[in-house]
Formats: sequence, structure tokens, C-alpha cells
Amino acid sequence: MANSPSGESMAHRIIRVIEAFDGEHRSLSAAELARRTGLPSSTAYRIVEELLAESVLERDGQLLRLGTRLWELVSRSSKVLGLREAALPFMEDVQAVVGHHTVLGIIEKNEVLYIERIGSNESTINITKVAGRLPIHATSTGLVLTALGPAEDQELLLRRRLKRYTDTTTTDPDELRRELAEVRRMGYSVMAGTIVQESTGVAVPIFNADGKAIAALSVVIPRLGGPLQTSITALQTAARGVSRALGWDGTLRDAVRRSL
Amino acid sequence: MANSPSGESMAHRIIRVIEAFDGEHRSLSAAELARRTGLPSSTAYRIVEELLAESVLERDGQLLRLGTRLWELVSRSSKVLGLREAALPFMEDVQAVVGHHTVLGIIEKNEVLYIERIGSNESTINITKVAGRLPIHATSTGLVLTALGPAEDQELLLRRRLKRYTDTTTTDPDELRRELAEVRRMGYSVMAGTIVQESTGVAVPIFNADGKAIAALSVVIPRLGGPLQTSITALQTAARGVSRALGWDGTLRDAVRRSL
Repeated sequence: MANSPSGESMAHRIIRVIEAFDGEHRSLSAAELARRTGLPSSTAYRIVEELLAESVLERDGQLLRLGTRLWELVSRSSKVLGLREAALPFMEDVQAVVGHHTVLGIIEKNEVLYIERIGSNESTINITKVAGRLPIHATSTGLVLTALGPAEDQELLLRRRLKRYTDTTTTDPDELRRELAEVRRMGYSVMAGTIVQESTGVAVPIFNADGKAIAALSVVIPRLGGPLQTSITALQTAARGVSRALGWDGTLRDAVRRSL
Repeated sequence: MANSPSGESMAHRIIRVIEAFDGEHRSLSAAELARRTGLPSSTAYRIVEELLAESVLERDGQLLRLGTRLWELVSRSSKVLGLREAALPFMEDVQAVVGHHTVLGIIEKNEVLYIERIGSNESTINITKVAGRLPIHATSTGLVLTALGPAEDQELLLRRRLKRYTDTTTTDPDELRRELAEVRRMGYSVMAGTIVQESTGVAVPIFNADGKAIAALSVVIPRLGGPLQTSITALQTAARGVSRALGWDGTLRDAVRRSL
């Protein structure tokens, strides 16, 4: 259907236009937008006109930006919204008790995708942002969800070439395998300085009605003198509440049952 | 470009497919989806295949649902995200002080669109939901934003046929004009039972760097015995914080200056 000579579908080309906008490029001129999509200008301009007509894009003076329409359509039905609505009150509890950034993340296409973050306390460096991504092997969220996930995902991770962010980032497959086993045994992950020297991430799993670890609740605390035990306890308590709100009945899959 | 015989653009048809999903229809069979779009089945199926290839849709067993991709693309650049990120810490403050649902809303295409809601206290009936819409004339958010907005928007509202939700919903243009003037004078709106008998909405404006009222912060409290004065004070205090976070310098447009 309406594929270009390059074989790209219209949906693909529309996504390329939407994708050209990000946190650093919230408004773009039509020319910049065409350039960022890599589409022929005439194609890009026609798609822009179509998306303006649908209120997916809107004019911002001489520039273009994403309108509210797509956000509204996506938000009212996305599985992300259900998860974050269930988690938000419990995230507030964690933030109140621990006093540091509280973050909700999932694994999406081999990376950690953060879907909510609360807390205005800027006492430690936290590079997570909503709708931002970080690598699995360097984050507490990535490690706990991989450790409690399917064995094949662990093997895939161990076969990948992993980037060393700091001197405590584990990139050696054997060492990472031992760390995953330890996280599975403990039921939570603690990652000290693996992505930013000064910060420690602590993450616990959230289970769905099938007892599958579908998301992680985490805090980012100062590596030196941060409230580590308090964080673990608060997260474990809150994550049970979120899991229950998602229909979890308190039973766990085999891999997790051994440890918790 | 690739317009159908009916003259609809591809972007329009893709939006119709995405739009078929909502809070009550988070997962759909391909046949249900085709039916809800009103598109010819073959067209709907081809668009579904394209959207599956782009991870905009994903399979949920035998059904289809919106994937995370579009949420991610939209969230990282939408103006909604910047507003809600600025507002969220202050919404938590209001929720802590008032103890009732705290809501963030904007006006979008002649309706109120709610973009965030926090608070798990279920002490009063609150029909707002995230990415949900309510009518301007029956909500505190709609009235305060219209009262402080352009005069032409007020005239447009007064010319519309307005629905009476309860016996306190104002639908008479002359009465509504007086209420708008009163809201403009006070700088906030209080709507008692205008959409749900048992609840009162209280809303204050949030200003952007240009001193324009772009959103409203509101609470929904019990109509009988709810903390009305506390709500007004907490909202006024918090809204100044949100406005400042958006770059507002404390000066107001003429319409508002008179009152605050």
C-alpha cells in the first residue's frame, strides 16, 4: 500500500517524521524536519501537511511541533498508562520514605525504558528521564528484570558487546552471569556507580497477574552514605502494592519463588 | 499522496486505526479493529500490518493493542510532558496539604483535556481521568482558563448550546457571562456540583513565560464539608511555583493583573 520506491510503508515514513522530534528538538522548521527524517523534501512536506490536518503536528510560530492529539490517543489506551497509574501512588510512598528520585522502568527492545520518575530532591545525579532509555547491563532496572526474566534473554545479554561506563560497570560475561544469579537469589539489584560514579541504583520487580516481572521500581541514591537498606525495604514494600494493584495474587514464578 | 478514493490521507487512516483503541478497548481483534475504524477491511488490515512492523501496534495473544513505541516517541517531545513534569512536584504538595485528587488540565479544541491526576484518596467522586475530556462550561478548569483567556473564546463558549449535567450546571449565556467575570475578578474558579452532584472543583491558572494562562491546577473535594479555603490557598501557592518553573516572571497579563 502506497510504498515508496525504497519499499518503505507510509506508516514507516510517518513514524520517521514523528521520530524527528525529541527532547532536544521539540520544535523544528519544515526544512530541519525534512533533513532529520532523511526523506526527500517533497515527501516530508506532504506528510507534514497531512499530519497538520490531523493535529498530530501543530505550528509553533514559524516552527512545527508535535500537537497534543497523538499524546491523547496514545495515553488513553497505552499499557504504559495503566502501569504508571497503578504505580504512581506507591512511587509517592517510596519518595516520601526514601527522599530520593523514584523511577519506574520496563525493558523494551533490549534497553531499559523509563516510564515515570518522581521526586524533586536533587541530592544525587540521576540521568534517567521519562521516555528515556539506558542500557540493561549498567542499570539496576535492567539487571533485576533480566535476572527474573526468561533464560534466553540472559544469554542474549551475555552475548552482546557491552559498554563500560565507569570502572564498576560489568562487561565481562562470566562476571555478569554471576551478578545475574546473585540478583535472582536476592530478588533485587543494587548497582553502585555503574553508570554515573556518584549514584547507586536499587531496583525491585513488579509482577503482573501472571506472576511475570514486567517492570521495576527503583531509586537512585548517593553512592556514599545513601540510605541503601531503607531503599530496599521501601521498594520491596511498595512493589508488592503495585503488583497487587495489577492483579498479582502473591504467587511467584519458579525462578523467583526460590529467592523471595 | 496515496489518498484513498474518499480523499482521506494515509495519515488520516492511520490515525483512525490508532483512535480505535481507548480506555474501554485496549485490546481488539483485527476484525473489531476494522469495524471500529469504519475503513474497508482490506485497507484496515494492511495498515495494521504496517503498524505492527513499526511496533506502533503489538500482538496481545490473538488480539492487537498499542505498543510502547508511539508512547515513547510522543512522550519524549510532547509539550504535555514538559508541563506535567514541571507541575508534578507541586501537585504532590497540593495533594499532601489538601488530601484530595489534584488534577492538571488544559483546553484543547473546545474541551478540557486532563493531562495528569494524582492522589489515591477516594473520598469524593472524581470523573476526571488522564487523557480524558470534560466540557468547558461545567468544569472549574474550563471556566478559569476561559475567563482568563482571549475574549473571543468566551464569546464562542457563550454561543454554544451547553449541556445541563446537574441542577447547578450553568447553561444560560447571561448567567455564564456573569460567572466568567466573577472568576476573572477572583482569579480562581469554584464549581459546586456542576458535573457530579457530590463534588466541587476548584481551579487556579498556571502561566507560561509570556504570562498567558496555559493550564489549570485543580482539586476535586466533597461538596459538603470539603476544605474549600485550604484548597484555594494551596492551589494558588502551588500554581505560582509551577508557573515559575515554566519561566513565568511574576507579571500578569492585563486581564489577570486586575484581580490577583
